[in-house]
Amino acid sequence: MPFDRLIEKIESMNCPVVAGLDPKLDDLPEHLRAGVDSFESAGEALFEFNRQLIDALHDVVPAVKPQCAYYEQYGWQGVRALARTIDYAKSKGMFAIADGKRNDIGSTMEAYAAAFLGETGALGAAFDADALTVNGYLGTDGIKPLMDAIVKRDRGIFVLCKTSNESAGELQDRLIDGKPVYQVMGELCEAWGKDSIGKYGYSGVGAVVGATYPSQLIELRAALPHTFFLVPGYGAQGGSAEQAALAFDRSGRGAIVNSSRAIMYAWKKEGVDSRGFAEAARREAIRMRDEINAALSARG
Amino acid sequence: MPFDRLIEKIESMNCPVVAGLDPKLDDLPEHLRAGVDSFESAGEALFEFNRQLIDALHDVVPAVKPQCAYYEQYGWQGVRALARTIDYAKSKGMFAIADGKRNDIGSTMEAYAAAFLGETGALGAAFDADALTVNGYLGTDGIKPLMDAIVKRDRGIFVLCKTSNESAGELQDRLIDGKPVYQVMGELCEAWGKDSIGKYGYSGVGAVVGATYPSQLIELRAALPHTFFLVPGYGAQGGSAEQAALAFDRSGRGAIVNSSRAIMYAWKKEGVDSRGFAEAARREAIRMRDEINAALSARG
Repeated sequence: MPFDRLIEKIESMNCPVVAGLDPKLDDLPEHLRAGVDSFESAGEALFEFNRQLIDALHDVVPAVKPQCAYYEQYGWQGVRALARTIDYAKSKGMFAIADGKRNDIGSTMEAYAAAFLGETGALGAAFDADALTVNGYLGTDGIKPLMDAIVKRDRGIFVLCKTSNESAGELQDRLIDGKPVYQVMGELCEAWGKDSIGKYGYSGVGAVVGATYPSQLIELRAALPHTFFLVPGYGAQGGSAEQAALAFDRSGRGAIVNSSRAIMYAWKKEGVDSRGFAEAARREAIRMRDEINAALSARG
Repeated sequence: MPFDRLIEKIESMNCPVVAGLDPKLDDLPEHLRAGVDSFESAGEALFEFNRQLIDALHDVVPAVKPQCAYYEQYGWQGVRALARTIDYAKSKGMFAIADGKRNDIGSTMEAYAAAFLGETGALGAAFDADALTVNGYLGTDGIKPLMDAIVKRDRGIFVLCKTSNESAGELQDRLIDGKPVYQVMGELCEAWGKDSIGKYGYSGVGAVVGATYPSQLIELRAALPHTFFLVPGYGAQGGSAEQAALAFDRSGRGAIVNSSRAIMYAWKKEGVDSRGFAEAARREAIRMRDEINAALSARG
């Protein structure tokens, strides 16, 4: 099962961290931005940025999570950089999570499985990620078409449950028969995952649960024993290591914490020359790893 | 406002129909599929199929709706075909709806606005659609970043409310304080749209409401007077013209009905040679137009 592979990578590196790769041209180091005057050259710059980050991170961080929007805004040339990023990360042994929050039904969702989870067939694989984030608003019809990829091709999904943003609660906290929507969605994840449980007790159907809502993180961790969590909201969005630690089970498993901007743009915060961006990213990833591991130890 | 333009196109053509362009290589006419052996040639075949459909449809149908998944499964080369399809449809005067059901927050959602609603800036536009379908599960943080595109750049969005599929109700029909989730989402659409109301009373924030649930269509049409509906589920999914007609207001405005497979693959049902696929699509679109207009007249 896909999250067995991820769990083993996390444990062998002792690092429950995923590096978000959400590059925006304007925020790239000057030497990579210089001369960019088209989507073509923007795509090249994005990939070069990611390539150097992956080179610097791959032996300390088990996974990357490129967010599709950042690539799509540079047209198909940006999308090509997404495909190259996923391929390069995997070639360096990293677990690649495509953060697309895709959602649809039936044959359209099958097309997304083909697109992102390696199911295109004879012509090869499009975006050959290990996992894809999805939105479960459409119910089972939107998840079932992914089960073949999960069970037969060892790929995972993360379903949005409780997101990290301020307005998350507008729908997600509303009560259905006394239960918040995020919990209803979480229970659906448990149900969807029941035939894909791996050796560590986690299914191929994970959930996105933000670090910014600690009491709900505690509640969901307890309620969803077979659901692996992808945890956004740490760092830039205000979630602390102590909060993120609540996403893990008693054996210190069951979650991976994302950081995007703080890792990608660490050189800005450090105040070092932008040519050292990749080394700064590595230092920030190590700092974050140690901070989260300390919070996990403190929790006991 | 964006739906003013769409409404005027619908009225001048007397055709409240949008043609879904969801091409799957295996379903294309043999002469277009022949020799396809790579994503590159698949993308060319997809675009050629769409180009001929657009040529045959553009003077009878006001809008097209390419579904992103079908292009993404052929990699960036497929995504290039999506961009070319949107550009070509617009060059023929059609209103182009990118069906991506995108969702995220903050700067990521801004990136989607850049990607799909023409906001990328100096480098040009990526996928320069007139409207984008979105998923509102993350609340206001996921919609606000699109408001600039809606108000200043005359683009629209359609938020998933009640989808056309069988399992739609698993979440969407559940009650929150006695109100189904789809209605809560619908009321959010009304609130999000309030500063973008056009001359026909409809805002730039539309909703997706399936033709397959007639009683809920009636309920939502009454409850959401400023929300323009994109209606899937007609035809292949089982929704009738009479059901689809329930999406329209008393003046016969306020909705557009989608058909994808029935139009794209009309030649198969007609049993004509696949080389005549575009003319068959045109005949089916006209048949559908007349059927929906008849249902609208019958309703009075």
